[in-house]
Amino acid sequence: MKKQIRRGRRPGDPEVTKGAILDAARAAFAETGYDGATIRAIAAQAGVDPALIHHHFGTKEELFVAAHELPISPAGMIAAIEHGEGGLGKRVARMFLTATFTPGGPYEAMVRSAMTHETARRMMRDFIERGVLDALAPRLGVPDARLRIMLVGSHLMGLFMLRRVFEVETLQDVDLEDLVQIVAPTVERYLTADLGAPSR
Amino acid sequence: MKKQIRRGRRPGDPEVTKGAILDAARAAFAETGYDGATIRAIAAQAGVDPALIHHHFGTKEELFVAAHELPISPAGMIAAIEHGEGGLGKRVARMFLTATFTPGGPYEAMVRSAMTHETARRMMRDFIERGVLDALAPRLGVPDARLRIMLVGSHLMGLFMLRRVFEVETLQDVDLEDLVQIVAPTVERYLTADLGAPSR
Repeated sequence: MKKQIRRGRRPGDPEVTKGAILDAARAAFAETGYDGATIRAIAAQAGVDPALIHHHFGTKEELFVAAHELPISPAGMIAAIEHGEGGLGKRVARMFLTATFTPGGPYEAMVRSAMTHETARRMMRDFIERGVLDALAPRLGVPDARLRIMLVGSHLMGLFMLRRVFEVETLQDVDLEDLVQIVAPTVERYLTADLGAPSR
Repeated sequence: MKKQIRRGRRPGDPEVTKGAILDAARAAFAETGYDGATIRAIAAQAGVDPALIHHHFGTKEELFVAAHELPISPAGMIAAIEHGEGGLGKRVARMFLTATFTPGGPYEAMVRSAMTHETARRMMRDFIERGVLDALAPRLGVPDARLRIMLVGSHLMGLFMLRRVFEVETLQDVDLEDLVQIVAPTVERYLTADLGAPSR
């Protein structure tokens, strides 16, 4: 974790500092996993004060999102849950499907990598448990909040996989807004309704 | 496509014949894809009559299922749709989740491979479009049958991925039968109800 001096950088340029933080974050998450990586260690590696990371990126989960250019962040999910146009189900479905159906982005490589590489898989799992569920579940204010979020996440992630990764025509031919209308009642039911099974 | 004579085999033993057919099928699907592989070519490669393949394995999609030891077959899905205990949603959810939540099986390697290898991905996509959707959609007898099956498939596949591949604890802690009860109304709605969006 030696502090590196890099040539050609102008210290103090916020974009240069942000780039150094993101480089250090990617390396730390890959090396020590999501749970193991700390803002303090990332700050030391980037040669900045930890407070500057919080200033630029907020929480550890948002830093993870920025470092991997994920199309969806816990903060974005909370915003879609708490306010916006239309009902809850439509807001969440539209936010998720719009973000993940848009082609490209390095996050696709990370999802693929998580399927086949043990360290990437564990990093992704810990981000889901700690970065996503820990942040979102308390905001829902309902019993079984973690399970409810995973029910929604499984459906929307499955749609992303079948449309963007497997490229199944039947799902590529559907208009995005039609799909939002179709899945919205399911999302709303999972997030709000009585699930009809014993509470865990 | 040379017929091979292998040592130690007793010609006429049905298990030996089946093994040779499955070996030839795996090779043909991998080399020429799901659409390109034919029962005729597989029969030639295995040194048997095409009628024997139909006798042992039925259709091309069932041969694909057997060759890759998939935990779910189109025939099994049709059976779950058409008869059994409980409502339609419960039957389909229970069949799928019971089969895919049970650990192991070489099919998991194929799913992972399809995420990262272009030929495996295309083989899987063509199996979904031609092997699964072509077989199941006409049996549903409703408009948008292909889309409905993909809505159900995306949800159940996402649950499989998050529970078995990413190993998210929140989904591993749920009792299987509780999960069946929870997702059954969603499955039933997708397969039977008005989807509330313009027909495609």
